[in-house]
Amino acid sequence: MYRTHNCGELRISDVNKKVKLSGWVQKTRKLGGMTFIDLRDRYGITQLVFNDETDAELSEKAQKIGREFVISISGTVTEREAKNKDLPTGDIEITVNELNILSKSEVPPFTIENETDGGEEIRLKYRYLDLRRPAVQKGIILRHKMAQEIRNFLSNKGFLEIETPFLIKSTPEGARDFVVPSRMSEGKFYALPQSPQVFKQLLMIGGYDKYFQITKCFRDEDFRADRQPEFTQIDCEMSFVEREDVLTTFEEMTKHLFKTVKNIDFADAFPRISYDKAIEEYGSDKPDIRFEMKIHDISNSAKGKGFKVFDDAEYVGAVCAEGLAGYSRKQLDKLIDWVKRPQIGAKGLVYVKYNKDGSFKSSVDKFYSPEDIKEWANILSAKPGDLILVMSGKRKETLTQLGELRLEMADRLNLRDKNKFAPLWIVDFPLFEKDEETGQLHAMHHPFTSPKQEDVVLLDTDPEAVKADAYDLVINGNEIGGGSVRIYNTEMQKVMFKHLGFTEKEAEEQFGFLMNAFKYGAPPHAGIAFGFDRWVALFNGSDSIRDVMAFPKNNAGRDLMIDAPSEIDEQQLKDLRLKIVRE
Amino acid sequence: MYRTHNCGELRISDVNKKVKLSGWVQKTRKLGGMTFIDLRDRYGITQLVFNDETDAELSEKAQKIGREFVISISGTVTEREAKNKDLPTGDIEITVNELNILSKSEVPPFTIENETDGGEEIRLKYRYLDLRRPAVQKGIILRHKMAQEIRNFLSNKGFLEIETPFLIKSTPEGARDFVVPSRMSEGKFYALPQSPQVFKQLLMIGGYDKYFQITKCFRDEDFRADRQPEFTQIDCEMSFVEREDVLTTFEEMTKHLFKTVKNIDFADAFPRISYDKAIEEYGSDKPDIRFEMKIHDISNSAKGKGFKVFDDAEYVGAVCAEGLAGYSRKQLDKLIDWVKRPQIGAKGLVYVKYNKDGSFKSSVDKFYSPEDIKEWANILSAKPGDLILVMSGKRKETLTQLGELRLEMADRLNLRDKNKFAPLWIVDFPLFEKDEETGQLHAMHHPFTSPKQEDVVLLDTDPEAVKADAYDLVINGNEIGGGSVRIYNTEMQKVMFKHLGFTEKEAEEQFGFLMNAFKYGAPPHAGIAFGFDRWVALFNGSDSIRDVMAFPKNNAGRDLMIDAPSEIDEQQLKDLRLKIVRE
Repeated sequence: MYRTHNCGELRISDVNKKVKLSGWVQKTRKLGGMTFIDLRDRYGITQLVFNDETDAELSEKAQKIGREFVISISGTVTEREAKNKDLPTGDIEITVNELNILSKSEVPPFTIENETDGGEEIRLKYRYLDLRRPAVQKGIILRHKMAQEIRNFLSNKGFLEIETPFLIKSTPEGARDFVVPSRMSEGKFYALPQSPQVFKQLLMIGGYDKYFQITKCFRDEDFRADRQPEFTQIDCEMSFVEREDVLTTFEEMTKHLFKTVKNIDFADAFPRISYDKAIEEYGSDKPDIRFEMKIHDISNSAKGKGFKVFDDAEYVGAVCAEGLAGYSRKQLDKLIDWVKRPQIGAKGLVYVKYNKDGSFKSSVDKFYSPEDIKEWANILSAKPGDLILVMSGKRKETLTQLGELRLEMADRLNLRDKNKFAPLWIVDFPLFEKDEETGQLHAMHHPFTSPKQEDVVLLDTDPEAVKADAYDLVINGNEIGGGSVRIYNTEMQKVMFKHLGFTEKEAEEQFGFLMNAFKYGAPPHAGIAFGFDRWVALFNGSDSIRDVMAFPKNNAGRDLMIDAPSEIDEQQLKDLRLKIVRE
Repeated sequence: MYRTHNCGELRISDVNKKVKLSGWVQKTRKLGGMTFIDLRDRYGITQLVFNDETDAELSEKAQKIGREFVISISGTVTEREAKNKDLPTGDIEITVNELNILSKSEVPPFTIENETDGGEEIRLKYRYLDLRRPAVQKGIILRHKMAQEIRNFLSNKGFLEIETPFLIKSTPEGARDFVVPSRMSEGKFYALPQSPQVFKQLLMIGGYDKYFQITKCFRDEDFRADRQPEFTQIDCEMSFVEREDVLTTFEEMTKHLFKTVKNIDFADAFPRISYDKAIEEYGSDKPDIRFEMKIHDISNSAKGKGFKVFDDAEYVGAVCAEGLAGYSRKQLDKLIDWVKRPQIGAKGLVYVKYNKDGSFKSSVDKFYSPEDIKEWANILSAKPGDLILVMSGKRKETLTQLGELRLEMADRLNLRDKNKFAPLWIVDFPLFEKDEETGQLHAMHHPFTSPKQEDVVLLDTDPEAVKADAYDLVINGNEIGGGSVRIYNTEMQKVMFKHLGFTEKEAEEQFGFLMNAFKYGAPPHAGIAFGFDRWVALFNGSDSIRDVMAFPKNNAGRDLMIDAPSEIDEQQLKDLRLKIVRE
């Protein structure tokens, strides 16, 4: 037997018990005739003590033990003289009478502490050591707890977790597939699923009524910050439901998670904001509504006063940064540089300082009278002491830039508290988005999304005006989930494919089995999928999803620990009848 | 709103309620001025009734509805005149006043009933229809329930479910890997995991203490009956434990599943049988112990009496088939043919009829006196009326054949009741097995399995005699789980690789990261993995794991529904820098 207790559970009430503990050596120190070891495991840290006088041999053995050695000890629980209030086990220590070294350890390449000295590359290479850091363990344990809560919540609601296959068929729709060559079928490939979308729809056609799955999905995308080639989705679908049923069910699930995991109550219903309004007021379809600072359209007021930049612009909009009228020239110049960075891509930025004395100072004083400016301030409900920031240009583009600026100003004003959560639903997305270059329409969500019933009449005449029966769950500026009411008949699906530029042959080849399934009695159905990694990261207060994955890949899709991807045997290639074409 | 209730929940206490139901039309029939529809969903069947006289128009509409149409109805719950005791809803019916057809259905290619008229190929092609059959739904629902019970049991025991990656590194060890070409790294590949073995060991080194995961694994194997290229494993690992801890924990989990899912109590501890004894008495390392009929060694008694076949044999063994002494000549001849089939591969079979009158009649009466035969009967504890079946040859081979014969005779005697369960542990496996052709040793479980402590001294002198600290959970002749205590230090692991014929370079290339991890304080650890598909199939009374997978592939690894694997775009191949070498 290696232990009677773990390193996190002994308390003052256990004093005098004979115990056996095992774990990792966090640190060893000598102090006034005593040798101390902090012994660590997943559950906590317990202090071991060796009396250098009464058992010199054992103490000497203890002193030779290095960091991260795995040891097993027997001893007696003793009350500490100097208690440590920061540790749950801080009232006691173990007076050791037996010590076994189970595994030695070389000096780890970085310190196993929350504030480590290791950079990300080295920590990924030695991920098994990085995983020992309590901060990392906290995220992994949170992930487990969230998955359990989700599964139990949905099971109690009558949802069935059903596993869908990983070796499926490649479809060029959406992002790139990872493919898997088949050895048994020459020249043919499986693909790894980008999502179980089609399978969950088939499960609805199969009569399963309420389905969910927490499952891995795969996307072969080019380098993008904080994307992983494999990621985890909470995938859900329901039959005989309308949008309201889905929103109600999953709002309840979200509240359940907030309550059980974060101990936060949401008494009120989550706000619902239409896509159009979100763009108009926040410049984003995933607005962070922890703070206001809405975007306001000041086109009417700003145009026609001789300032050519605004006069020529389709749209002039502004945000009001509370209390920042004191920004210096230098600070404002830096902010202008910030909006001009390629990531934002703005041409410039007009500022108006609403001085504390009620006067205005702007970068366009030449063109606008104080009365003109006052009008802007009124539209924005600005107060003396505020800083108004104005941008102009094409409407959608400018709104997006103002949306980015809004987040930046909120960061500067510390309005984005990681411990505050503001969930909302975005609804009524456009059904299509247009490729500006080719003019081709693409499905904004995916080709199985149903248009809103009242907009079906517009499909042929004005497809861009058609709204989808789609919805996103957004929390703190992150898209946590998204879904839609689905098309459930072949005719409507054919219309969709036509608008999306699929030939009948292409549609048949790629989705023939789904179109075929619609012929045998498909129920009305709707669903949603949540990005599990992102949700855990959000609850964990992490900026990167890598923090809450046990074995993440780096931003180039490499696993630095196991060194994958890697070359394979010539024989393996031959068995697959593949040849690598080197350039 | 599509429904107020589902099709399985209305009872006599609901009479007079106004309800709305939706579902699939199981069947329509006209009877004495009334039209009846059986409406089906996942939860059950409810009878709808239309009065042809009071609402002729509605009745006519109902009569036109075909099988598998999806409809939505409003009506009133009414007490049935002729109650149906076989249906939970059989006391009531719905008198319909409104009927909407939500989706039409073509005539399905097979009947949606437990006893269907469709063969397996057509049912796999239209799996979404096959999935509607209540018998299939029962298996999928059972699977969900089992997964939930396992997750809750293990979570309550402090296990964390941790996701390990799917895009890993190819290792030639064991079965063939499925590989995934990388677009970002020219000429390199990921591999899909055959199991999370290495990752769960790294999680132990990372300090996670108790891990589990219900996850997909992949093996690119040649055609074998009832194998799937992707299958699901319940993967578990614990730190600071010995064999006893693992067996205790997972025996408790198994009993929990039996209790909560099958309502079966196992008061006693599961039997533990050594590998050697299992082979000796059952001719198998996964014995079915629902019945006795043990194999007995009669070599001493059978040899030296002038019967050359036995005299030349290394081993002579027998089983006793209770009450089958009345087998006819023809039946015996057929049985002899059966053992000679290539699947069994025996040269022949000797029989002894222990007649009811106490006399013996055997196929070797020429060589053996009744006293000789009586001795065999005594060894086998045979009674008058029994049939003794004897085989001879090389020991291991003959035992395996007798093991197969034992199962066959048990089938004939109806001793293998699907509703009876006999779990046991097989322990003390050999560490290695020898390739008879090359003489090379292979790991019987996998190269990370620890030898039994007391056998370590034999590693260099007599490796084949070394027992592994490995164990299997066997139920009704199925290997449901298997695991071992692991090696946790680099030196022992190197010794293992040496015996397994790995060069240091090969070992380093393939498992360097694990060997490296051992250098930084690895805890003693042990684990087990269960074949989830097989376990569900067993509990479901299914012969094939395909019955309990939502979207199985056929025996050739093809998904007949989505038609995968399939060809991919030339552009995709080009992006991956691959060329297909056609023969």
